[in-house]
Order: sequence, then C-alpha cells, then structure tokens
Amino acid sequence: MRTLFMGWGLFLLAVCSNAVQAQQVTVYPTNWWAGMKYNKVQLLLKGEEGLNKSQVRISYPGITLGKVHTIENNKYLLVDITVQPTAKPGNVAIQLTAAGSKTQTLQWPLLARAKGNGTVYAKGVTSEDFIYFLMPDRFSNGDTTNDRVPGMRDQSLNRSDLGARHGGDLQGIINHLDYLQNMGVTALWLTPVLENDMPERTEHGYAFTDHYAIERRVGGAAMYKKLGDELHKRGMKLIQDAVYNHTGSFHFFMQDPPAKDWLHQWPTFTQTNFKEQPVFDPYASAKDRKITSDGWFVPSMPDLDQTNPYVANFLIQHALWSVEAFGVDGWRIDTYIYNDLPFMNRCNKALTDEYPNMTMFGETWVNGTANQAYFAENNINVPFKSNLQGVVDFQCLFTGIKSALTETNNGDGVYKLYNTLSNDFLYKNPMRNVIFLDNHDMSRFFSEVKENVAKQKAGIGWLLTERGIPQMYYGTEILMKGYSNPDLLVRADFPGGWEGDAVNAFTGKGLTADETAIQQYTKLIANFRKSSSAIKTGKLMQYMPNKGTYVYFRYDSRQTVMCVLNTADTAVQVNCADYAERTSGFTKAHNVESGIILPVTKALEIPAMSLQILELQ
Amino acid sequence: MRTLFMGWGLFLLAVCSNAVQAQQVTVYPTNWWAGMKYNKVQLLLKGEEGLNKSQVRISYPGITLGKVHTIENNKYLLVDITVQPTAKPGNVAIQLTAAGSKTQTLQWPLLARAKGNGTVYAKGVTSEDFIYFLMPDRFSNGDTTNDRVPGMRDQSLNRSDLGARHGGDLQGIINHLDYLQNMGVTALWLTPVLENDMPERTEHGYAFTDHYAIERRVGGAAMYKKLGDELHKRGMKLIQDAVYNHTGSFHFFMQDPPAKDWLHQWPTFTQTNFKEQPVFDPYASAKDRKITSDGWFVPSMPDLDQTNPYVANFLIQHALWSVEAFGVDGWRIDTYIYNDLPFMNRCNKALTDEYPNMTMFGETWVNGTANQAYFAENNINVPFKSNLQGVVDFQCLFTGIKSALTETNNGDGVYKLYNTLSNDFLYKNPMRNVIFLDNHDMSRFFSEVKENVAKQKAGIGWLLTERGIPQMYYGTEILMKGYSNPDLLVRADFPGGWEGDAVNAFTGKGLTADETAIQQYTKLIANFRKSSSAIKTGKLMQYMPNKGTYVYFRYDSRQTVMCVLNTADTAVQVNCADYAERTSGFTKAHNVESGIILPVTKALEIPAMSLQILELQ
Repeated sequence: MRTLFMGWGLFLLAVCSNAVQAQQVTVYPTNWWAGMKYNKVQLLLKGEEGLNKSQVRISYPGITLGKVHTIENNKYLLVDITVQPTAKPGNVAIQLTAAGSKTQTLQWPLLARAKGNGTVYAKGVTSEDFIYFLMPDRFSNGDTTNDRVPGMRDQSLNRSDLGARHGGDLQGIINHLDYLQNMGVTALWLTPVLENDMPERTEHGYAFTDHYAIERRVGGAAMYKKLGDELHKRGMKLIQDAVYNHTGSFHFFMQDPPAKDWLHQWPTFTQTNFKEQPVFDPYASAKDRKITSDGWFVPSMPDLDQTNPYVANFLIQHALWSVEAFGVDGWRIDTYIYNDLPFMNRCNKALTDEYPNMTMFGETWVNGTANQAYFAENNINVPFKSNLQGVVDFQCLFTGIKSALTETNNGDGVYKLYNTLSNDFLYKNPMRNVIFLDNHDMSRFFSEVKENVAKQKAGIGWLLTERGIPQMYYGTEILMKGYSNPDLLVRADFPGGWEGDAVNAFTGKGLTADETAIQQYTKLIANFRKSSSAIKTGKLMQYMPNKGTYVYFRYDSRQTVMCVLNTADTAVQVNCADYAERTSGFTKAHNVESGIILPVTKALEIPAMSLQILELQ
Repeated sequence: MRTLFMGWGLFLLAVCSNAVQAQQVTVYPTNWWAGMKYNKVQLLLKGEEGLNKSQVRISYPGITLGKVHTIENNKYLLVDITVQPTAKPGNVAIQLTAAGSKTQTLQWPLLARAKGNGTVYAKGVTSEDFIYFLMPDRFSNGDTTNDRVPGMRDQSLNRSDLGARHGGDLQGIINHLDYLQNMGVTALWLTPVLENDMPERTEHGYAFTDHYAIERRVGGAAMYKKLGDELHKRGMKLIQDAVYNHTGSFHFFMQDPPAKDWLHQWPTFTQTNFKEQPVFDPYASAKDRKITSDGWFVPSMPDLDQTNPYVANFLIQHALWSVEAFGVDGWRIDTYIYNDLPFMNRCNKALTDEYPNMTMFGETWVNGTANQAYFAENNINVPFKSNLQGVVDFQCLFTGIKSALTETNNGDGVYKLYNTLSNDFLYKNPMRNVIFLDNHDMSRFFSEVKENVAKQKAGIGWLLTERGIPQMYYGTEILMKGYSNPDLLVRADFPGGWEGDAVNAFTGKGLTADETAIQQYTKLIANFRKSSSAIKTGKLMQYMPNKGTYVYFRYDSRQTVMCVLNTADTAVQVNCADYAERTSGFTKAHNVESGIILPVTKALEIPAMSLQILELQ
C-alpha cells in the first residue's frame, strides 16, 4: 500500500545527474499540490556539508523560483518558489549545482489535489459533532506486523508496561469504526500519529522526529490516509493533533539544527513554568514571559522558535500539507499557551484561508475562564487578539462538571458549574469550545468520582447535552479508571482491542453490568444528540441551581430539551412551571433514557445523583 | 447647632396663607443651590389626601415651572422646575392651590453654594489615599446626650448587646481625627449616617427612613457637616456610603408609597438570590435576572424600582444634594450588583458631570474576577457597559491575600493571589479598585488567619503596598477579631472610644505588645506609603511566585519599592539579581520597617511568614 502514497512519508531524493558526489537531499515539504491558494512555498532542503553553496535552478512550467536563503548550518538551503495557478501536476526538477560545478536534480512532486476538497474533508468539527479521543497505541492492535519496526529506537513493546509500546494501530481503529459510529461518534481525535523515533515513551506521539513521516508502528502514511477515507465514507471526521511548540529531541531540528535560533536556546536547561499568567498579566516581567513561552516542555522536547520566519513557514506548510495529504477535518493544537501566539494566529489563518470550514481548538490547561478566554477568540479588549476558534474547555471540567459531581455539599459544586458557564460572555463563540470529562494526561473521570457509577452516568449525560463540542476519551463509556499521578493507568488498553483479551468492550464480552449499562447509556444519549437540533445547534438557558439541583435547557424553534441534574443524595421534585420561560406551551416531558412520557403539569421526580434528559412535547 | 443648617434634615413647610385647612407638605429635595449644572430638578411634594388636586405656581426670578405630575397616591405631586443660571439664592415661593381655592405657600430654599467647590470637597478618592472604614455607632462616643433620641423606634442602647445601639457618634470620630491622621489615614468611610428610624438593628445604618435627615443619634446634619469640614481642614476626605437599592421599611417609600411601582412588588415576599450571575450570564432566564435585581434584600428593606423615572430622579438628586450639602469627596455604593445598572450609570454620570473629580466604588461581593469586572469600567465587549470607576475588590481578598496567608501549603495560596492580579486585564483601571482585609459584614482578618500576628502584619503590609486604594476596617490595626457568623463580634466597639474603657487604643493604654506592634507597623507603613510615589501612583510588576515566595515591585521613574512576601514557615534567601528588570541599577535595599540597609548584591534573607518592604537605592 505504501507505494501508492509516494507523496507522503520520508522523501529522499537523490537523483544524480552528471556527478559522482551527489548529495542525499531531502526537500520539505515533500510535495505540494497544484491549485492551492497557499502557493508561495518555502522549501527547506536538507543535505550534506556545503549544500548551502549550491546554485538552484528550477525548470518547470508555472513554477517560479524566488529567493534562495542560506542559513547558519551549511547543510541547509531554503528555496522560495511560487506555484502559479497555471502549474500542472508533475515532478518538478530542482537542479542543484555545487561549487565544483557538479549538478544534481531533485524530482519534487507537484500533485493533483484530491477531489472534493472542502466537502469530503476539511469540513470542520462543530457542536454538531461528538468527538472520540484515543491513543492509537492503546485502542486496538489491527496489524501485529507493525508492532515493532527494526531500526527504530524504542523497541519496548510490552503490554504489561504502561510506558512501553503496546502495538495498537490505525488498522485497529479502522476495524472498530462500526463500534464508534454506532455509539454516535462523528469525529475521531487521535494522539499524534507522526513519527516519534525516540528511545522511550513513544506511546503518546507528542515527540515528533519527522514531520513528514507517519509513525510506521501505527501503520504509516497509507494507513493514515485510509483511516481518513474510511471516516469520510461514513460521514465522520478526522481531527489531527498538532504540536507546533516542540519536537522530539531526535528530530533533525535538534540533532542537526539549521540554525541555533531554530530552537529556543538557554544557557542551562530551562523548563517552562507551566503557567499561563505571564502571557497576559499586565504586570508580568519579561523574564517570566520568556520562561512561559520559550522554556522547554521537558528535556526531550526542544522548544521551537516560531518567531524565526523559516521555522514558522515550515510549521505552517506542514499543517496545510497534512490537511491536503490525509483529509484532516479539524485541528487540535497541543500546549497552545506555550506557543508564540502571533505565530499561532498566522498558522490558524493559513488553515482557514485555505480551508474555510476548517476548525481548530487549542489545549488551554489554565486556571480560570478569563485566562482561558484570552487564548481564544474573545470579547476582551486586549492588545493581543487570538483568532483561535475554540479551546479545550478545562474550566468546564475543573470548576464545572467535576465540581458539580464531587463537591456536592450544599450544592457548592453545581453552583461552580453554573458560574463557569455564566462567564461565557468572555468568549466570542463558546459553542466552539470542546468539553470533556478526561483525557490522556488527567485522571479518569470514573476515578475522580470515586468509581460512583451514577456520577459517571450524570457526567456523560452532561457531556452530551451541554453547550460546546463533546469529547469522550476512549473507555470512559465502559468505566475505565485510573489516576494520572503516579501511575499511567489512564493510558490503559481498551479491552478487546487485542486478540485474546479476556474482556471485549466491542462485543460486550466480559463487561460488568455497570460497564454495559454506561456503554449503552452513552450510545443512547449520543444518538439522541445526533438527531437533536436543540442540543447540536440550539441555545442554552440555565437556571440558578437550587440546593444542588441544576436545570438547564437546550432549545431552538423546533425542539426543547430540559435537563435536570440533581446532585443531592435524595430525590427532588421539580415543577416545570418554575421554568415557564422554556416549558410553557408544552404538555409532556419525554424522558430520553427511560422512554417514559409524563405530563408537565405534575412535579417531576428526579432521582438522587442523576441527570434526567427530557424532550418536551 | 441644628438651626444653622436649615437646608438639611427633615423639612416641613406649612405656611398657611388664606385658608384654614393648609396641608403639611414636605418638599424633596429639601433645598437646591443656585449655579449647579444639574438644574432641572424634580421636586417630590409629600402632603395629605388630595394634594394631587393642587394647582402649582412658582413665582421666583430665574425659576421656571415645568411639568407637574400626578401619581397614583393622591398625597403626592411631582413638580419639574428649572433653576436658570440667573437665579439667585433665596426662598422660592411654591404656591399650592387646592380644588376648593385654598392657597398655601411653601418656602423652598435656593442656597448659595459653598466656596471652593471642586477643590475643598468632591475631590475624589484615589490610590493616593488610605481609607479607614468605621461604623459611627461603634467607634467612639463623643456626645452621650444623643445616645438615645426620644420618639425614635430603636431604644435598645446597650453596649453589651452587639445588635443594640452603642452610642458612638460623629463627635467621637472628630475627637480622634489626630489618631487617624497620624496613622496615615487620608479618607474616612462611614457606614451610612442617614436616619434609620427602624425598630431594631439600626447600628449599621443601611435602612434609611429619611434620605434628607442625618441620623440624630450620631449627631445629625450639623455634626456631619462639621466632620466634613474638619476632614477637609486636614486635607483628608469624606466618603459617603450610598444605598440606592433599598430603604428601611419605615421609610415613607414603604409606609405610604407614592405609587405601587415605587417599589418592586412581588405576590409573596421574594428575596434576592444574592447571586450576580443572572445579570451577565448569556444563558440566564429572565426569571432569575428579576430575582437578582428586584428581589428584596431582607423583609425590612423594600427594593426600589429604579426604572421608575420618579424614583431615579429622587435618588440621583439626593446623591448630588449630599455632596453639596456635606462636602462629600467619594462615594461608596452599597449592594451595587442588585441595583438597576442603567440607573446606576445615570446616577454615576450625574455625579461626575457635576463634580469632575468625584469618584465612586461599588460593593461587588461576587464570585470571580470576570464577574466583578463586569460591574466596573472594563475591557469586555458586553452589551451593557458599566461606568463605575472602581469596585470593592472582593477577589483580591477571597482568592488573593486571604488565600495567600491561609492556603500556605506548597504556595497554592500565594499563586492564587498572583493569578487574581494577573486578571486585571479585564479592568479599565484596576488602580481604582478598593482593596481590603475585612469589613463589617465579614469575619475579621485576624480571625481568618487564626490570630496569627505575623500573618496579620503581612496582610497589612500587602494592603498598603499592593495596587489600588487600600481600605482598613477600624480595629484591624489593633488585632480586633471575630467571625461574621454566627456572632456580630466583627462590629465590636473600638477600645477607648467610650469613657472608662479599660483599654484605650488611642492612647495605647492596655493594649498588648502584639496589638501595639501592629498598630505601630500600620502607622509606619501607611506613612511611608503617604510619601511613596511608587506605591501611590506607580506601576506594579509581579513575578511568578516560587514555592510560596511572591516578589512584586511598585515603581515609577523616581522610586522602586520591592516587596517580598514569604508565606512559608521557614526563611528564604532572595537574590535581587533574579529580578534584574527592576533591581538593576540599584545598589542598596532599605528595609522600610527595620531601617536596615543591605547591599543588593547579597542574597536577602526573608524571614518565615513575613512581608519585607524594601526601598531600592
């Protein structure tokens, strides 16, 4: 399969013309496409000593050679080209003539774009979607032949070690798309699938060692393209996890950097402070701001200097390239707050300029709604205005649903959830925020609620009815548990993903009654959501919680869904008349879970610790 | 003395001309002034049955009679007049001719304005000030003859009951202005001094029963005017505590309301939810919004309908009248969030239109910086834009200094303080916020910090060096303690304020060593502040806290003050070089408290749980 996708993967072009000492030269991006709006491409040529002395000529109809830039490291050259609208697909000959008059020609593919651009892919992920987020290494092993790739640094394959590789892959995901689609999932977000040729801890994928290679242990470029195609056939979407802030230390950016200022350099290793405030604090010191933005995430992840225009171009082109090459629909951006924010704006704009429906949301693990809103399109008059459409809404978790279901004393927690949402006036469009219960870095929600099944169920019900784009982390639907600290149990294998697993969540074999019930509840509510205009695109009205009972409505002109979250340990009676603004005109409440239809004139009994979802009729 | 101030106090005018059945008619405002910018005055005439049938004539040079409004209750009339710039001071004759052709003439004073408007009073309270906040009934009893006023409903005088009256008064305050001024205080904020002729719990003053009468038990109008004059002589300022939202239930607004819609009416008693979110929540129900704004504070405090233009005019005119009559410099607005906010904007604007230097700050007891910033002039694009200059900064207490000094584990608390200030990007001018440690409604700070003297001292040091306008509640400087709930100990008498008190904080007699030390520390730092341009008007730079140590600077072109708050239980070493942005160029650090001068090249030892204030030289 791989040969079908010559445009992707590591591309080594060394076509010797008239010399014996031709260099091995790699061109990034490894190809481009005819007819892209983004047509001023800056090629990064990576070769051997003295490459920077080469003369560059390009002879191809519709391709104009612009400036050639040399850079500190003599193994690199940067070549600006313009792909004119008239340029036709084909192999572009790039001639390099070294000082000693040797000439070699690189064949650089200009491809034809895939059909259906903007309709089949790059569709954007919106509040109409339900995102399932998984780690390819941990979901399902569909191809055991790629579990270990000879020559790669991490040979740790060992399912009993949560820090080692487990063998999960894209084929495994493809095998179970029915499961996901039946559950109501419409979009898949995977931890990064780019090559992580690091010595250890490669299961998460956030340490890229080659932007233009898809990790062979999850199936490589062809399989990634196949996943995109399979999703699109089902009307589902693919979200790519982008890491702009850093790479893995075995990337050539670190091993043989084009220039010192390719990376943020420090006299001694300096880690980011992992705090967002210096970015927006009117009182911040320049020192703290620099540590936040330019400090390294961890020693194995060098921090890129995105203010270097060559670095910026490289990253932006890679983003566009990824969408076009694999049919990406949405974009999740890792460690958003540590990036150079003007660069991020430029990068985000390049994506939406090329793909008007494309959406992106950033990881904003911060402490407060104002802090979070700062990094998104917001209603705040601050000198820097972000163009990020949405954020991963950590506040709706931290001081939202987690508070609501764990700080149940006097309803304090549910009041915090209500308060957090009330601050949505800070966002331009909070419906674009991604809400969630847990992820690969955080304790599983089921552990956070002390393995209380009713709370997990209420959490999932909330996730699927609250404003924004719901994201479920794999296994939350079957009560997977574990704390992020100190163990890695939050990255455990999905049961049934491996041949011979004693429990199989895909078939239901071996699941406990509770696990099955929550899995079915997720499926039921997610599919209800799929057909609910009120939840997908309607408005929200929330009433002030009363002693731990929180009533909110999703509504539009066609439908009204009343949600009642009772966080107390006793049942409560709720009178629909108390919510007349939204209930008047309706006579019946259809309980989406039980199917029971009750008259709205009678008080509704809401069981202890439960969320009732009622479609009014 | 009272006769000298005929313009103030309850004004009953009943000058019979040619009839036997003249009415007792009161005019509000009880007077106005020639030459005010605000010259379209709406007089509220309160009389007896049938007053609304009267014909009104005014014959006075420069006074134009406008519209006369009848209203639901026939005992009232509203009379619009314009005081032309040509009008001279004198008694304006208002002739009322009842249906049966009886005519009576009211003499309504048009006074000459006090000299020095805008320079001697209405000066505004800014970050250059240090506010002392006290309850007149609890600070000092300077005149025992007014302790009990015959005929008034509350005859509870009893110092051993914290809910009864204690006899403190304005004369008591005047007697101790030296104490306050020597301590560095520049502005006094008193709980309201307007008449509270309520049956009980009149010590706080927030239940007005007559807007135009100063509480006789604190000394009446003459004494209030005297206090203003005495303060101004010293270059100090007077802040009035305004209550627009409600009155006491024995006010005629409630006893004999001009119209039903003078007050917010509810089918059954409905209390406010005491929550701010419905005011700004994009998802709020109209029902919750109405409860927040229109619900009553307590049954004894009817909620005024400020959307009623007559009510609005009455309140705005009273505000202007108060400034002009007593020489008010600043304005503290009670329960700001429950008022009709468009009305508040109009009222605030009327004050600054008339008195360009006037400032006002509102009580915003809310849950979060965004929530608080909503009620002030802010940098948020929301449909309603507040013109309130500053707020009582509850966030700087709740998630600020209180956190810093009580949640000392791992420095979590001081990080919250740092984070809270980082959110200042939401305010237009956070320097106008009033910061504080405690007040009459909240537990004493010394109790919040579990009577830890070092923490109280650090808190006071912070109060006097942080951005904004510091406000100290009476007695905080001598370690007064008590919880707001369930007791009222937070309203205890200031020792020495009463003849025969065993302890006298004014002279120092009977104070413990700790109490004396904190009192002297307050005096020292407040006086240092008084001469510190950096603290009064300079900028703030704050560094990210490090394990419970928080370093911030106040600085301008003339001065740099370095403040180091160590919240840990061990001493720390702080290297000035780590804060080079602010310390470079200086060679010495002068410890304001100890007087010790150390070279900045040596690490500074900061003792456990202490704030060190260092002027760099």
